[in-house]
Amino acid sequence: MKNFSIAKSRRLRATPYTSRIEKQGVTAYTVYNHMLLPAAFGSLEESYHHLKKNVQIWDVAGERQVEISGKDSSKLVQLMTCRDLSKSKDGRCYYCPILDDEAGIINDPIVLRINENKWWISIADSDVILFAKGLAIGNKFEVKILEPNVDIMAVQGPKSFGLMEKVFGKKITELKFFDFDYFDFEGAKHLIAKSGWSKQGGYEIYVENIESGLKLYDRLFEIGKEFYIRPGCPNLIERIESGLLSYGNDMDNGDNPFECGFDKFINLDADINFLGKEKLKKIKAEGIKKKLVGVKFDIKEISLSKSIDLKDESSNIIGELRSACYSPHFGKVIGIAMIKKPYCEVSQIVKAEINNNICTGNVCDLPFI
Amino acid sequence: MKNFSIAKSRRLRATPYTSRIEKQGVTAYTVYNHMLLPAAFGSLEESYHHLKKNVQIWDVAGERQVEISGKDSSKLVQLMTCRDLSKSKDGRCYYCPILDDEAGIINDPIVLRINENKWWISIADSDVILFAKGLAIGNKFEVKILEPNVDIMAVQGPKSFGLMEKVFGKKITELKFFDFDYFDFEGAKHLIAKSGWSKQGGYEIYVENIESGLKLYDRLFEIGKEFYIRPGCPNLIERIESGLLSYGNDMDNGDNPFECGFDKFINLDADINFLGKEKLKKIKAEGIKKKLVGVKFDIKEISLSKSIDLKDESSNIIGELRSACYSPHFGKVIGIAMIKKPYCEVSQIVKAEINNNICTGNVCDLPFI
Repeated sequence: MKNFSIAKSRRLRATPYTSRIEKQGVTAYTVYNHMLLPAAFGSLEESYHHLKKNVQIWDVAGERQVEISGKDSSKLVQLMTCRDLSKSKDGRCYYCPILDDEAGIINDPIVLRINENKWWISIADSDVILFAKGLAIGNKFEVKILEPNVDIMAVQGPKSFGLMEKVFGKKITELKFFDFDYFDFEGAKHLIAKSGWSKQGGYEIYVENIESGLKLYDRLFEIGKEFYIRPGCPNLIERIESGLLSYGNDMDNGDNPFECGFDKFINLDADINFLGKEKLKKIKAEGIKKKLVGVKFDIKEISLSKSIDLKDESSNIIGELRSACYSPHFGKVIGIAMIKKPYCEVSQIVKAEINNNICTGNVCDLPFI
Repeated sequence: MKNFSIAKSRRLRATPYTSRIEKQGVTAYTVYNHMLLPAAFGSLEESYHHLKKNVQIWDVAGERQVEISGKDSSKLVQLMTCRDLSKSKDGRCYYCPILDDEAGIINDPIVLRINENKWWISIADSDVILFAKGLAIGNKFEVKILEPNVDIMAVQGPKSFGLMEKVFGKKITELKFFDFDYFDFEGAKHLIAKSGWSKQGGYEIYVENIESGLKLYDRLFEIGKEFYIRPGCPNLIERIESGLLSYGNDMDNGDNPFECGFDKFINLDADINFLGKEKLKKIKAEGIKKKLVGVKFDIKEISLSKSIDLKDESSNIIGELRSACYSPHFGKVIGIAMIKKPYCEVSQIVKAEINNNICTGNVCDLPFI
């Protein structure tokens, strides 16, 4: 597939780490929340193998925060998500589908409860801040909504624990998955969560003090040599194999959370008020009409830049392939597809035109591994 | 400056024209409303000269529409903009800054009044649909809000009039600037406005019937040979010389419309209700603290990927350069800058680090030409 350049401008904001990753060999970008997000440092497959064995530092500043604070902040955050946050705790991260009044997904962020009156919504790629502002203004909520200067650096991979212990001490290895706490680096306090957009383990450092953050970035590379540290970025292969969904790729505003398999994050029986609740009850009663599933094709190459129609053996369109890559683990192409309900059973045959050939694949469960 | 690839995916949606422009020689993309927007077909300067003399077809499908219809649609659209739409007419386009309750700019779209109960907001790069949904839900407005399948193709340049007359007849040449009407192409009706993101004249075709739209695209190239037709895209040089502002580049949510010189689109005395009205009255009474101006530097080259600090002769930061290019017309670099009020007088000296050199420039009026 032909390569095209990205035309840079202030509108596709550089991050505080951009000048560093350009010296370190970034080769491709995507755009995420109007910001440059690295997408490759040379070969995706080589980076995938490295990530699964070692440790990488990722510039994921594009994961922007929507900060909601003030008297009505809990009410507003709860209004936006079908997940029950009434028993949420300070210092915890929550994966929360954000829905509109028709139960269409608007985003699937991680919500950080800083305290009862201050929340960070760590967003996927859509302007949640505009939805929050609209709702707050319309409902006359007493809240303050802003995008703080937070530029996340992720430390991912099995060797991330050893590396982070060398900088922050034993305490950081005791952090539980999806907990966050504050850790000191040379006198500067950093919010660090045990989280990240891979299944290889690691941390996300929510850098507010960017001067200290850049020193920390450089320090991690200095002392990381023994852990075979490398710069990296969310890896298409690793995230698809692990079944980590991507908003805008695998699901969008035309999908509801039941269709995406988010059942455990939908709390219809809780005594809480959120958008789309009545609609979700109706969907639950009637059953969903389509569903996200995995698909596998016995081919070795794919490069997807838009949905690809999936057909059954009689050439009826039964769904669409939304993300895909060659998986070294399976030795074939795997992908994430939205398929009409009657056809989403495991082993259903699907046909698709890929690389100008008609290929045959089959449906499978998510996650793949 | 080094080139980086754009990593394609469904999240950065291709347009219906993408496969055509890739055959026609597009070399760079930007991302606009989560969609691929062509940014170059080879040399920007060559394309600039061609645009000023001939006619180009642009894939600007990234200019997405937010369709607002229903009983309260006029009320919602007016609530979002400081421009008085109470006397607006069907079939007209209106340039309308969209503001939040603090008078920060959220977008600067063209609003098309289809009729009193149906509007299209043709947006710059931010998710206005989420702001509109939030406001509608919070205010319990009776409206329907959606992103229709509209993929704009622009026909720009001085020869666009002759070309379009050959397809649509004399009637299209009588369309006034910022009017729109419906025109027939082989039995399919297309909404066409006399508008476009250049100052070279032309049209924007709001394609809803994409099958017909693609035929029209091909037809324009067939019969356009005598007009020296070429594929193109919004041209950085032409738009800066013409002083066409770009949301996210030249202004953002941290700026108010007075600071951007939008005074004639701010109707504080009209008997209408819009967000930020009280704040704008206060700003007007107190005076603005910064302003968008032009700057010129006696250098031949610049490539800007983020704001560049502007300093006075004593090295105090007095503003920032937000967009810039080499202008063949002036034989120097020109740019758009936000400058603190006391320093935004014409001929103010500004200093900036560009291409690793300290360069001296001066403030000038907008537009440049």
